[in-house]
Amino acid sequence: MKNSPIVLLTDFGTSDPYVGIMKGVILSRAPKATIVDLCHEAAPQDVRMAAFQLLVSAPYFPDKTVFCCVVDPGVGSSRRAVWAKTKRHQFLAPDNGLLSWLPEPVVEWRTIEAEKLRLHPVSGTFHGRDVFAPAAAALASGLSAAKLGPKILDPKRIPFPSAAKTRGEILCVDHFGNAITNLRAGDVLPGTELRFRTEKIGPIGKHYAERPVGQPMALAGSSGFVELAVRDGSFADRFGVRIGETVESA
Amino acid sequence: MKNSPIVLLTDFGTSDPYVGIMKGVILSRAPKATIVDLCHEAAPQDVRMAAFQLLVSAPYFPDKTVFCCVVDPGVGSSRRAVWAKTKRHQFLAPDNGLLSWLPEPVVEWRTIEAEKLRLHPVSGTFHGRDVFAPAAAALASGLSAAKLGPKILDPKRIPFPSAAKTRGEILCVDHFGNAITNLRAGDVLPGTELRFRTEKIGPIGKHYAERPVGQPMALAGSSGFVELAVRDGSFADRFGVRIGETVESA
Amino acid sequence: MKNSPIVLLTDFGTSDPYVGIMKGVILSRAPKATIVDLCHEAAPQDVRMAAFQLLVSAPYFPDKTVFCCVVDPGVGSSRRAVWAKTKRHQFLAPDNGLLSWLPEPVVEWRTIEAEKLRLHPVSGTFHGRDVFAPAAAALASGLSAAKLGPKILDPKRIPFPSAAKTRGEILCVDHFGNAITNLRAGDVLPGTELRFRTEKIGPIGKHYAERPVGQPMALAGSSGFVELAVRDGSFADRFGVRIGETVESA
Repeated sequence: MKNSPIVLLTDFGTSDPYVGIMKGVILSRAPKATIVDLCHEAAPQDVRMAAFQLLVSAPYFPDKTVFCCVVDPGVGSSRRAVWAKTKRHQFLAPDNGLLSWLPEPVVEWRTIEAEKLRLHPVSGTFHGRDVFAPAAAALASGLSAAKLGPKILDPKRIPFPSAAKTRGEILCVDHFGNAITNLRAGDVLPGTELRFRTEKIGPIGKHYAERPVGQPMALAGSSGFVELAVRDGSFADRFGVRIGETVESA
Repeated sequence: MKNSPIVLLTDFGTSDPYVGIMKGVILSRAPKATIVDLCHEAAPQDVRMAAFQLLVSAPYFPDKTVFCCVVDPGVGSSRRAVWAKTKRHQFLAPDNGLLSWLPEPVVEWRTIEAEKLRLHPVSGTFHGRDVFAPAAAALASGLSAAKLGPKILDPKRIPFPSAAKTRGEILCVDHFGNAITNLRAGDVLPGTELRFRTEKIGPIGKHYAERPVGQPMALAGSSGFVELAVRDGSFADRFGVRIGETVESA
Repeated sequence: MKNSPIVLLTDFGTSDPYVGIMKGVILSRAPKATIVDLCHEAAPQDVRMAAFQLLVSAPYFPDKTVFCCVVDPGVGSSRRAVWAKTKRHQFLAPDNGLLSWLPEPVVEWRTIEAEKLRLHPVSGTFHGRDVFAPAAAALASGLSAAKLGPKILDPKRIPFPSAAKTRGEILCVDHFGNAITNLRAGDVLPGTELRFRTEKIGPIGKHYAERPVGQPMALAGSSGFVELAVRDGSFADRFGVRIGETVESA
């Protein structure tokens, strides 16, 4: 039987062998696993950024994909490791809110406790290797989730920074320097002008090439949220954008 | 039947989940696909750099490989999406010149138009996800290219910056700080001295260890083009190299 | 028959297509290969860093994994290419000490010489593509190592920077800014205070969350070596750490 894909989302970066080691553990236990790197460059220990990356990415992965997510400032402490199931996918993560913004409702939560799924001795600083990777390999190979640990009803939740229809904030900045907001593109009325600081940024457009090179603009981003961009440039560099800054109707 | 490998070449970087999302789309439609990252770090929107990366890389990939290339400053505008076939490979890209320097002649061009291959609604800013990834998955799974769209004869072409035998320019700088020129190693006569600015850089060598540590040198690079290097150092950092600068016979 | 996994460890970075090209060569010769990136971000030509990455990573990979390691300042010179076998794994590398610190004893060394395994013409600057990738593909597909070249007894060795139980040094700094030392966690007596420069750093802990945010601490790292860290911060940035600095008992 074909294994389910395993998707890795961490803040480990790629300058160390940590992600590679997790893949070694997975392949040791699920030799046919298809492993996909979602992202390893969330700012270290930025749980909200990783939660947002899951929100906008998970819908595009096949049914039964196992997401193994490790952004874990509390590694080794008493924080639990948790598993969540939605209609289409499974998720593994520290119980720190990383799974708060999943795109589908969670239908079941469990802790990940089973000693025999772990690598021993379990280190105090690398549960990605010792706890999460082995559990992901087992689930992708067909392990029943009931073997992980008991059901729970109280996972840690981080509230999504909800936007009013006319006032939101910068959630993150991408590689191109686009500033992604928490304003849902569908909530902003057509023709509405947006303002960032004292800058008026015309009504929401559809793609970068609508505007002259170098001009700031607002767009319906591919993830469904409004983005601020500069054609053929970086909005974030141009304005020195900080996460959390306000964007509102002009 | 084994799927053809799919090679991804983008300017998306690895700090966002964009490349991972493309892999999710591909695996949703071609669960057995072998996906290879060629490079995601071309300077944002640097179509020429990506074209050069294809030129020097494609020959090393298996027959029937599908190259899915997305460096796309005009995403969402009326620029076409195109498919090109050479004797050994297939290529998908925006019609912006990215496929201008392929290592083999193109025997057929088509547009990528078929609505039923796309993810709907097609976003205005992420055709990698909505147009190119689904088409690549379909081709790797055996779809006939005729299903993509009609043949075309007028793809956009960027001329290769041809070098005279005695005068060329810096095309790009690699991770080691080697400056790769458009002088073909086979065109430069043995024993010819090269000059960069006022610096004489002896005749073309074969490998870095021929010279003392720290000395500038010219080499027949692995891609067939002359490179300027510093043994155990960075030529680019040492001289503050700019793309397009002249290199000529001394 | 399922191929053995091939693990790539280089200093090529990910801003060039060099790693992707190696994968193309491997897939051309071993289409079913499972290829894993261990790390490509060792400082250019830092053989010791790569040797350390192998030491802490190899144990977590499946039996029969083929490690293809290319950090190679002497590429193209007369330095040999070598193969090493341990009880569980195989390793390919330049003969420059990269395989000095393997986690298991080497039971056999050979040179990699067979002309018919190479890509011709062999470049003077990219043996990863022309020598190591093809050999790795062949071994992963079941080639007998005797076909590579003759046995040798004199591979180049770099001594591990051994620590006294009370005095060691910084070996490397990771993505989080943790400074990894050559002090083995099991060698440091419980309760021993460590000192870095004039800073007293309490007894060795088990995980980051034991200390207040921002406080320096020493930990038994996941690789078995003592690490210096700052909770939710970067020890390396805080102190401007240099590789090779002394860490000792207070």
